[in-house]
Amino acid sequence: MTKKLLVVGAHSADYVWRAGGTIAKVAEQGGQVLNLALSYGERGESGELWKENPNRSVDEVKKLRHEMSEEASAILGCEFKCLDWGDYPMIVTEERVAQLADIIRDFAPNVIITHTKEDPFNPDHPLAYQVVEKARQLSAGAGVAAAFARINPPVWYSFEPHQPELSGFVPDTFIDITSVFEKKIAAMACMRAQEYLKSYYTELGSRRGNHARRISGKQQVKYAECFKSNVPVILDTIVPDMHF
Amino acid sequence: MTKKLLVVGAHSADYVWRAGGTIAKVAEQGGQVLNLALSYGERGESGELWKENPNRSVDEVKKLRHEMSEEASAILGCEFKCLDWGDYPMIVTEERVAQLADIIRDFAPNVIITHTKEDPFNPDHPLAYQVVEKARQLSAGAGVAAAFARINPPVWYSFEPHQPELSGFVPDTFIDITSVFEKKIAAMACMRAQEYLKSYYTELGSRRGNHARRISGKQQVKYAECFKSNVPVILDTIVPDMHF
Amino acid sequence: MTKKLLVVGAHSADYVWRAGGTIAKVAEQGGQVLNLALSYGERGESGELWKENPNRSVDEVKKLRHEMSEEASAILGCEFKCLDWGDYPMIVTEERVAQLADIIRDFAPNVIITHTKEDPFNPDHPLAYQVVEKARQLSAGAGVAAAFARINPPVWYSFEPHQPELSGFVPDTFIDITSVFEKKIAAMACMRAQEYLKSYYTELGSRRGNHARRISGKQQVKYAECFKSNVPVILDTIVPDMHF
Amino acid sequence: MTKKLLVVGAHSADYVWRAGGTIAKVAEQGGQVLNLALSYGERGESGELWKENPNRSVDEVKKLRHEMSEEASAILGCEFKCLDWGDYPMIVTEERVAQLADIIRDFAPNVIITHTKEDPFNPDHPLAYQVVEKARQLSAGAGVAAAFARINPPVWYSFEPHQPELSGFVPDTFIDITSVFEKKIAAMACMRAQEYLKSYYTELGSRRGNHARRISGKQQVKYAECFKSNVPVILDTIVPDMHF
Amino acid sequence: MTKKLLVVGAHSADYVWRAGGTIAKVAEQGGQVLNLALSYGERGESGELWKENPNRSVDEVKKLRHEMSEEASAILGCEFKCLDWGDYPMIVTEERVAQLADIIRDFAPNVIITHTKEDPFNPDHPLAYQVVEKARQLSAGAGVAAAFARINPPVWYSFEPHQPELSGFVPDTFIDITSVFEKKIAAMACMRAQEYLKSYYTELGSRRGNHARRISGKQQVKYAECFKSNVPVILDTIVPDMHF
Amino acid sequence: MTKKLLVVGAHSADYVWRAGGTIAKVAEQGGQVLNLALSYGERGESGELWKENPNRSVDEVKKLRHEMSEEASAILGCEFKCLDWGDYPMIVTEERVAQLADIIRDFAPNVIITHTKEDPFNPDHPLAYQVVEKARQLSAGAGVAAAFARINPPVWYSFEPHQPELSGFVPDTFIDITSVFEKKIAAMACMRAQEYLKSYYTELGSRRGNHARRISGKQQVKYAECFKSNVPVILDTIVPDMHF
Repeated sequence: MTKKLLVVGAHSADYVWRAGGTIAKVAEQGGQVLNLALSYGERGESGELWKENPNRSVDEVKKLRHEMSEEASAILGCEFKCLDWGDYPMIVTEERVAQLADIIRDFAPNVIITHTKEDPFNPDHPLAYQVVEKARQLSAGAGVAAAFARINPPVWYSFEPHQPELSGFVPDTFIDITSVFEKKIAAMACMRAQEYLKSYYTELGSRRGNHARRISGKQQVKYAECFKSNVPVILDTIVPDMHF
Repeated sequence: MTKKLLVVGAHSADYVWRAGGTIAKVAEQGGQVLNLALSYGERGESGELWKENPNRSVDEVKKLRHEMSEEASAILGCEFKCLDWGDYPMIVTEERVAQLADIIRDFAPNVIITHTKEDPFNPDHPLAYQVVEKARQLSAGAGVAAAFARINPPVWYSFEPHQPELSGFVPDTFIDITSVFEKKIAAMACMRAQEYLKSYYTELGSRRGNHARRISGKQQVKYAECFKSNVPVILDTIVPDMHF
Repeated sequence: MTKKLLVVGAHSADYVWRAGGTIAKVAEQGGQVLNLALSYGERGESGELWKENPNRSVDEVKKLRHEMSEEASAILGCEFKCLDWGDYPMIVTEERVAQLADIIRDFAPNVIITHTKEDPFNPDHPLAYQVVEKARQLSAGAGVAAAFARINPPVWYSFEPHQPELSGFVPDTFIDITSVFEKKIAAMACMRAQEYLKSYYTELGSRRGNHARRISGKQQVKYAECFKSNVPVILDTIVPDMHF
Repeated sequence: MTKKLLVVGAHSADYVWRAGGTIAKVAEQGGQVLNLALSYGERGESGELWKENPNRSVDEVKKLRHEMSEEASAILGCEFKCLDWGDYPMIVTEERVAQLADIIRDFAPNVIITHTKEDPFNPDHPLAYQVVEKARQLSAGAGVAAAFARINPPVWYSFEPHQPELSGFVPDTFIDITSVFEKKIAAMACMRAQEYLKSYYTELGSRRGNHARRISGKQQVKYAECFKSNVPVILDTIVPDMHF
Repeated sequence: MTKKLLVVGAHSADYVWRAGGTIAKVAEQGGQVLNLALSYGERGESGELWKENPNRSVDEVKKLRHEMSEEASAILGCEFKCLDWGDYPMIVTEERVAQLADIIRDFAPNVIITHTKEDPFNPDHPLAYQVVEKARQLSAGAGVAAAFARINPPVWYSFEPHQPELSGFVPDTFIDITSVFEKKIAAMACMRAQEYLKSYYTELGSRRGNHARRISGKQQVKYAECFKSNVPVILDTIVPDMHF
Repeated sequence: MTKKLLVVGAHSADYVWRAGGTIAKVAEQGGQVLNLALSYGERGESGELWKENPNRSVDEVKKLRHEMSEEASAILGCEFKCLDWGDYPMIVTEERVAQLADIIRDFAPNVIITHTKEDPFNPDHPLAYQVVEKARQLSAGAGVAAAFARINPPVWYSFEPHQPELSGFVPDTFIDITSVFEKKIAAMACMRAQEYLKSYYTELGSRRGNHARRISGKQQVKYAECFKSNVPVILDTIVPDMHF
């Protein structure tokens, strides 16, 4: 059975910095990844595109950001979709929650990754967390028989925010992305509106690899991404093979 | 390579209620389990043995508790050892920390399980946590080259205390023990000094199974034990097979 | 002066599992209990009723759930009312907050019991907490002279959620329900759409009784329910008779 | 049966500022109060006595502090004892823990009051918390049959530290001390080495009374002391008379 | 360059009790202070004005409250404005968030002060926190180039709520207001609808001065106000002159 | 009056990675810095020195580490001292606490910097925190007249641990070290036993500079170190010049 991963970002480039390696790893292992953006981030994080050409229309900026994310997604091996809800501020309504719940129910992912509950540096990020939290609950029900179709509750993680400590982010899961790190670098290079982040997140991959080595003693981990789980995991043994 | 699990209990029966199923699961899967008690619990939790026969010597009580734990360990498939440090209160010295560090270094477990950091109902339980915390650090070093022999830092969990909420226990890992639950019941039956706990922990296995089903949707989980991880895990993918 | 208790559940059966014994105890002691449901839970937790008869209309399901709750309330000795706001998801508006504030002002309870602030397994439960929090504030004012009629701020508790540790529930108050436990069992039996919960919550009553005995040493407590207080209590002495 | 309260202060005057009214209230209601100081505070808080007369011996300072506490205790209606363990820093050994456990076992209090777990302004205060925590556990056992004599576990509170927010103090229990506030003022007046605290704690009584009125609406509470409970309470009903 | 401070209160008198001294200090030092109220508090905290004259119209009450705040602001040396959004409950819409974001962008303060994130005693206070949090983010962007005009992110504090411990308030910054305390008293005297608060907050100034002296050893601090910072500060040295 | 900073590290190289820039900044501004190591870290972090030459004696390793720290201290502009208490594990006695309290009392620093309260990767780091906490209290007293000589309580910070999120480190204070960053690099180069850390901490300086720019908008900050304050600061205004 194919493993399925859903990544939900508030803006169309969030996934590449924060989960690009993890996406590529799942794809490499034969899994299916749906990379869903709630907005294009056309206002809050496209300043470089506006500076290049102040006469661009909002639609042109969105089109450029769509192309960049499709290109990066192709490199990582995932499908890209954008709900185009607008950014800075993003507005979430009951209808939009229901729209996302339907997407989750249809895709039936094993795992969902999204933003953290808190992020003092961006009003859209915690909102993305909230809408994912509620839509995930509505798609899965309370774990009991219900009046509507339900899926099994997906495992649910938050990816790393830009300033982790100030966003209450305490990582509990590190993913070794050594084998796909070149793909992540290539995917980050597609995001030319935020190029200054490429070297920042290249360094971060190295630092999180250092942390993973210190935590586990496994010297083969050169690069890593880290996550915070929002629900417990259910295992078949406390010493699984995957604690490789 | 054989998987190795070390369980450290403050008293010689702690493991059976709190990790008996998880031990049996590892053994069933071909792993090796060292079941280490820091004391026999001859004072704090052997009241029934003293009531039976007030003339028993302390050594007789220890002997009886040793036999019960060996019998239960044989059922679960693990080796039992006791350091006989005394209980209620247990006294921990620098030498005893070093003794435990040596045991950890020699056994080189993949995973260690012990008590929680807090437990308002038993002074020995948090002490066991502290001595394991320090001994684990001393056996593994700071993740850098050191003047002494080091092992890879074992993954480290706390098992469930008797009153979880009041001990700051928030489970993040559930182990399906359905296939070995009969063994756990048989092992618990060996502990005749604390027989009243057998039905309590049989019920708890069922309740934690209910929780695991609700969290994951996996209907095959009938019985579970749950744990709190004290260090992050390092994985090869975010959708591993073991999230079965 | 009659003691008055208000119980606010998101769905029409929540009260019976979580506070049924405490309600019966207050009634037995001559108090008055208003048992208020914000919705019938006709979507999220009525799967069994729909399975029995897929052709049932929503109104028939509501009617069945109303009858079950009235029957159970009669056994426990309280009055049952439902605001019928819909479930999964429940929608809360400013008008609905004001409606609840009016009910609280009119009933003027000594104590309010409702859900916890967090519950990762049900989107309606935290919403019920929020609406009670705000309506209670609006009914009581800020403790100073106001432009509107005010009541004394009721003492305010959260009852136990299905997975307490994952909902941030740390109990600080246990109620001995030994003398009314048969009534709770009978009331739970009325909820035939969720029959699987009856044995679960019967066991929980026993477990919480065990905890209460260990905390206090009082051997007469066989069954208990537990709560988390959301506001301080004001006492006449630190060794009151009621710490029986 | 007489209600019994044990108050344990690190230094011989701590009780009067932090629990003087609550002690007087229990005494007034016919209860028995043992007021136990672990030290005289002869070094850390007796500067005024040394300034008055730099030639005083340590023993003279202790004697003066003993007399002041006996005088204040007589006003409040409790018995005063001091273990004279030394202050700033206080040294706690296993023998001293056992000494306190024996005192608790012999007195068998319904309620114990002591310092908070944290207090960044005084190294002796958290130490007093720790020794009470452990001695209380040793006197009561783990709630199960043991090899030694046990008492029922006393209810356990922390009193208010000088800088509550910085000491992690969140009050959950307010005691109305209006009827005995004059006694508290008279008792505080006995502590002439720390006279500057009398007006501070008179004001605090008024402020906590204001808070209690706002929380409950009860206008008759003029003065209050507040506490943080360290263990749950077991009640016979959720609307007890004592929530007066 | 003139230092600029923005104070945002939910109701038109909040600033005077909680930040009056700090405002006067900034003004005295040549800074500019904008004192912004989101509402007049005409319902929740004007009971005395209604009692005086039950026939007053809402507009008359607002006018009286406006005059009192202007008078107090003149004493403190700041400009007073009110957005008149209504109170108890205050309703916040996306448009009102945008309105406040525009005000912040136009004034471009160095520092913003508002309520705490939690306040169980007043539903409008946490709402004021939320609207300031979001408007501040929208005015400053995410610290990267954006499609809209941005200001530097202001430093951001919460002032002290009426019951600090129950509102999660842990002060990390004390401001010495000794030199302007007479002005604060005079400003508080203007608020005749809440006269009972004047002595309360006079005492609080003294108590917080006591705390500041104990924390720092600086005996010259007689009166203080305290705050909780919501974002880190960036300093040029770890031993700045301002830690006077 | 000269500003004085005391830095206390568990091992003789801790200061350079974690506070080297902040030390150099204070020195550059004319302040005096005492750089105190509790041990040489001869066991836990000198593996490279042992690998170079397995025949080295412990004393030779200590001597080498002393020379490296003196060289680095000379570059940063501070005085280096080592108490040589031994490492991995470090043992702290009452006498050693008193020894450190005397050093603090004699030096009378304005600010103390040391490790964090928690650090799961090194048993000596939290111990250093504890001994500093207690020694600082003993040197300053409880803020009241005492029987012994006292200094004003120094401001107290924790520097950044190697894995900040897992050590409970939430930075609240960033120091701009741009002007002295070359000195920090040169000082780090002296520590040839831990060379692999030089690039790690060079990157960290850049990352924390990025964070400081995002927090404040101040583009001139290229490199920063960050800290967590353990006690509140007392300021003369809420918009000080030093928030440059």
